[in-house]
Amino acid sequence: MTRQVKSSKKNNGQIIYQLMEKMWPICRSITGNGVRQTLNIIQQTLPKLTLHEVPSGTRFFDWEIPKEWNIRDAYIINPKGKKIVDFSISNLHVVNYSTPVDMQLELSDLQKHLHSVPEVPESIPYVTSYYKEDWGFCLSHKLREKLEPGLYHVKIDSELKSGSLTYGELYLPGKTKKEILISTYICHPSLANNELSGPCLATHLSNWLSKQTSNKYSYRILFIPETIGAIYYISKHLKSLKENTVAGFILTCLGDERTWSFMPSRNGKTWIDQIARHLLKHYTPQYTEYSYLDRGSDERQYCSPGVDLPIASIMRSKYATYPEYHTSMDNMNLVTVNGLEQSYLMHVKMIEALEIDCLPICKNYCEPLMSKRGLRPTTGKVGSSHSSKNIMNVLAYSDGNLSLIDIANILDLSIFQIKEIIDLLIAENLLYLKEFDH
Amino acid sequence: MTRQVKSSKKNNGQIIYQLMEKMWPICRSITGNGVRQTLNIIQQTLPKLTLHEVPSGTRFFDWEIPKEWNIRDAYIINPKGKKIVDFSISNLHVVNYSTPVDMQLELSDLQKHLHSVPEVPESIPYVTSYYKEDWGFCLSHKLREKLEPGLYHVKIDSELKSGSLTYGELYLPGKTKKEILISTYICHPSLANNELSGPCLATHLSNWLSKQTSNKYSYRILFIPETIGAIYYISKHLKSLKENTVAGFILTCLGDERTWSFMPSRNGKTWIDQIARHLLKHYTPQYTEYSYLDRGSDERQYCSPGVDLPIASIMRSKYATYPEYHTSMDNMNLVTVNGLEQSYLMHVKMIEALEIDCLPICKNYCEPLMSKRGLRPTTGKVGSSHSSKNIMNVLAYSDGNLSLIDIANILDLSIFQIKEIIDLLIAENLLYLKEFDH
Amino acid sequence: MTRQVKSSKKNNGQIIYQLMEKMWPICRSITGNGVRQTLNIIQQTLPKLTLHEVPSGTRFFDWEIPKEWNIRDAYIINPKGKKIVDFSISNLHVVNYSTPVDMQLELSDLQKHLHSVPEVPESIPYVTSYYKEDWGFCLSHKLREKLEPGLYHVKIDSELKSGSLTYGELYLPGKTKKEILISTYICHPSLANNELSGPCLATHLSNWLSKQTSNKYSYRILFIPETIGAIYYISKHLKSLKENTVAGFILTCLGDERTWSFMPSRNGKTWIDQIARHLLKHYTPQYTEYSYLDRGSDERQYCSPGVDLPIASIMRSKYATYPEYHTSMDNMNLVTVNGLEQSYLMHVKMIEALEIDCLPICKNYCEPLMSKRGLRPTTGKVGSSHSSKNIMNVLAYSDGNLSLIDIANILDLSIFQIKEIIDLLIAENLLYLKEFDH
Repeated sequence: MTRQVKSSKKNNGQIIYQLMEKMWPICRSITGNGVRQTLNIIQQTLPKLTLHEVPSGTRFFDWEIPKEWNIRDAYIINPKGKKIVDFSISNLHVVNYSTPVDMQLELSDLQKHLHSVPEVPESIPYVTSYYKEDWGFCLSHKLREKLEPGLYHVKIDSELKSGSLTYGELYLPGKTKKEILISTYICHPSLANNELSGPCLATHLSNWLSKQTSNKYSYRILFIPETIGAIYYISKHLKSLKENTVAGFILTCLGDERTWSFMPSRNGKTWIDQIARHLLKHYTPQYTEYSYLDRGSDERQYCSPGVDLPIASIMRSKYATYPEYHTSMDNMNLVTVNGLEQSYLMHVKMIEALEIDCLPICKNYCEPLMSKRGLRPTTGKVGSSHSSKNIMNVLAYSDGNLSLIDIANILDLSIFQIKEIIDLLIAENLLYLKEFDH
Repeated sequence: MTRQVKSSKKNNGQIIYQLMEKMWPICRSITGNGVRQTLNIIQQTLPKLTLHEVPSGTRFFDWEIPKEWNIRDAYIINPKGKKIVDFSISNLHVVNYSTPVDMQLELSDLQKHLHSVPEVPESIPYVTSYYKEDWGFCLSHKLREKLEPGLYHVKIDSELKSGSLTYGELYLPGKTKKEILISTYICHPSLANNELSGPCLATHLSNWLSKQTSNKYSYRILFIPETIGAIYYISKHLKSLKENTVAGFILTCLGDERTWSFMPSRNGKTWIDQIARHLLKHYTPQYTEYSYLDRGSDERQYCSPGVDLPIASIMRSKYATYPEYHTSMDNMNLVTVNGLEQSYLMHVKMIEALEIDCLPICKNYCEPLMSKRGLRPTTGKVGSSHSSKNIMNVLAYSDGNLSLIDIANILDLSIFQIKEIIDLLIAENLLYLKEFDH
Repeated sequence: MTRQVKSSKKNNGQIIYQLMEKMWPICRSITGNGVRQTLNIIQQTLPKLTLHEVPSGTRFFDWEIPKEWNIRDAYIINPKGKKIVDFSISNLHVVNYSTPVDMQLELSDLQKHLHSVPEVPESIPYVTSYYKEDWGFCLSHKLREKLEPGLYHVKIDSELKSGSLTYGELYLPGKTKKEILISTYICHPSLANNELSGPCLATHLSNWLSKQTSNKYSYRILFIPETIGAIYYISKHLKSLKENTVAGFILTCLGDERTWSFMPSRNGKTWIDQIARHLLKHYTPQYTEYSYLDRGSDERQYCSPGVDLPIASIMRSKYATYPEYHTSMDNMNLVTVNGLEQSYLMHVKMIEALEIDCLPICKNYCEPLMSKRGLRPTTGKVGSSHSSKNIMNVLAYSDGNLSLIDIANILDLSIFQIKEIIDLLIAENLLYLKEFDH
């Protein structure tokens, strides 16, 4: 298994950033053509991505697919005839899932349909009303305060009617049916960190994954609308998900360069939790571990009682914790090529760690005679990860009960350093590997 | 199940305090008419209390019921003919279980039968000699130091002869045979915190319990002489106690307003230990958790090897830790109406927590659509215990493995706040309850 | 079982020190006559010690017995004809296992065969080349720096030819076949703390053990060359070692008076680990607990995966941590009679603790009536290890699940204090002992 991250002129962060720029203008929601357009762009990279349409009215668990929403235009014209709020400038200006409207009304009546955030007066907030028919506009509080009394013309050229909910699914078969679930959401309009970073990084990561020829695990990558999409998918595939999913993660909030964040699974101690903590410890300057009580993405569904999939997430600035969250300030200036590159490489490491982790077992009782193999002390210098001490320590703990990640944690080395030593010992016929009995 | 603490003009603390005043003058011991009188007073509140008489000479485990002890009077007359120590003033003046005596003797000989505590020179100590026939007087060290040489007349008008040991038992059947054991002791003479507070609070609590019409658990309340009473009871009922007792506590040292104290069971991690710690954390400003090594009450028997009942106790100032302990200073000024009220309410909470605790289970996979039920976000304000966040968190942990108390600890709410949310979710048909398989 | 440490005029430390002095001049290695001489001296104390000879070429696991090495003399003569390095002065001067050589060579060529330590310029380092045929001399760096160019005469009068590896074994049968393994190594030339202290203390300890007439456990004491000896022994006896060994320790680095050190087993929580930690806590002013990652003696073999014997070691200054380690400074001035005495007594305690540890069980339910036995409160003063409180606490925890060592740790007393109380309680027919089901 040779895995290589393609080193082209254009780095991974650039590719992801450019994909985000391409998808940026689209007005996405949990249904509608914005989702389809987005998935079509993703298909340009991932031709094997399957699109699914779930008709409005479909019932599952406690839920039902709502009417499909589409929008062409929306604006507010002030009493002086000036267009002061314009959907074509920012799709955040319209409450997502607004019913159509075309009327004149007094400012006092209009106010009931306006949303702004006094605390962040410059930014347009992101507001949705998926499950209660309503309409509204979002605008900066600064602008709202300047509105003068008079008759305003509001127009929302939207459509809410029977249609379907669209999602994308990519399945990459590996050597076993046991699978890694990767989930991201494609329902947010023009918002960058949360959430164009997730689906765009997921696209590039899936592209890399699809080129690996010797994956141990199968990979299932879901591009779904948040919450309702995850719940629908679980309702359709609960049995096989529970049977096959050995680990998984959600790709969300991956574009800025600030803190690293970790959201554990509900259980908190599954394999993916261990691996994520290990990687964060070894490959970030520092990170914040959140409690499952702070959850807010689709782990809410994947980890819910009775579903209980082992899903944990590594993020940069976590949703609901950074000032630009769910406002027009979460834009393409907040995310960076470098931030995306780092997040991408972290997730490549995550997959590589999942792929290599297993249970090494000594072939011999007692220590082998290392000097006859030239492994002691000439191979490595003391202190290097190949040092004789590290080699002997890996052997000393390869008892079939401890995984690579366990041994890495005991020796305070990274799983990849352990893997190099393991390979050396396999070449010497001193060790063999047992796969997990997931 | 609606449980209400009766809110009359006279509060619980007052009722308990007045009962203590009524019982105060009685000279109790491990046997005798003082115990019978005490139990008769309790029967005025608890008419269904059954009295048991165990004959002297009855053998059980390592023990045997001793002769019954009764006393009418006792005094010391000094060489000047003055009655300087008088049982009728304080029953602590006589060593409990003193054999009869009526003689004159020199001070030097009398000294061998006197007990006082130099460290607390004002107070009369409490001394017993149940299992070694002897006689003696207790007095303040201050008085003892003033005794002048000469011939003293001592008289103890007591009786030690075959009779019986008396104890009271109240059984309140609930929906199941599984029971909560409540034990208190009625062998201490005029001592207030340790120990009239226990039996008097137990009486009032049992009265409240007997009026509850829908108890899940059965309740067994024992009014016994300490140590020998508990051992006798265990010897007679070991099998059924072990089979049925799911939790229990000892009522002792409940009357002062100083520290809260916790004595865990020997095991330290049983259900009652968890519940007691939870309540102490949420409903006291602070408390001291003692080690089982500091035990001193009937947990010594209930938790002994092979008996192993899950018994833990919440107290105020623990026996053997406060300066007035086992002296005449542990009197009706040390205990307060307010202290008794707080202790009473804490134990009502303990019973309510035991009654409501169980395993909640989600009816749905994944999160339900809360907005259609009006549960999000309109029901509660963020931060209140009914907040949407708390509701969703209760659902997220209702997996059938975690109890209310577990969920309360995870969410850092009280079990009663969790119960309110649980009731809301049951009303929405989103949850059901599984009882413990004790 | 009465165990007594013989208190003669000559204390244990003196006896051990004198044995070390006797063995000091011998040039030991992993094979050869030095080992045989050493074992013959040990046989003077332990006549039942069995010597084993394993022929060169014998294969086992990853290993093979090498040729036997013997040496008569070795020196370097400088260009001026002066013997500047002389084996007869220190056997450390020759690289252990050097092939024979007798030649003249220029200083520049000689340098390739010289070993010294610039950091410790006064001392001769200890160097071996067991598994790669080579020759060399060790000398102080100070001397080496004074060497002038010219033709040097080097002579090593050694022999490397088919022979055998020699080791000693003493088996002392006890009441059960379950055994305690004690292992020490006899392959180091003139080095005192590491390692003449181990085999000499082992000899004296075995002598004491062989005089005990009522050992519960059988004892197997191995005097082997380090590493290859342990591996050979394991290869021959793996099944019976795994079946019978309930605890064990390595005797090494026992002669100086500096720090106490603890090397846990790989598992870290076995019986011997618990007992060693308990003794170190109670009988040393302080000690350093090392990680199994710091291992360096034959626990590397005994605790290796699949062998997994419960072997831990108490040492004084641990190998590879003190400045004199593996140099000519680790000599008879570094070890002291007092240091050896303390180490000896610690290991006698270890054996006594292993012998007495078991599971005490109360014969009664509930507390017994101690006063009728005179055990309360007259027997002991409060605070003494025989205090009524301690007696009652021992009873309270004698539930058949906790060992003496567990109870000692709960009560914060030593296992020997607990044993005294246990004996008292057995005499009172209140307790009986259950042996471990190893």
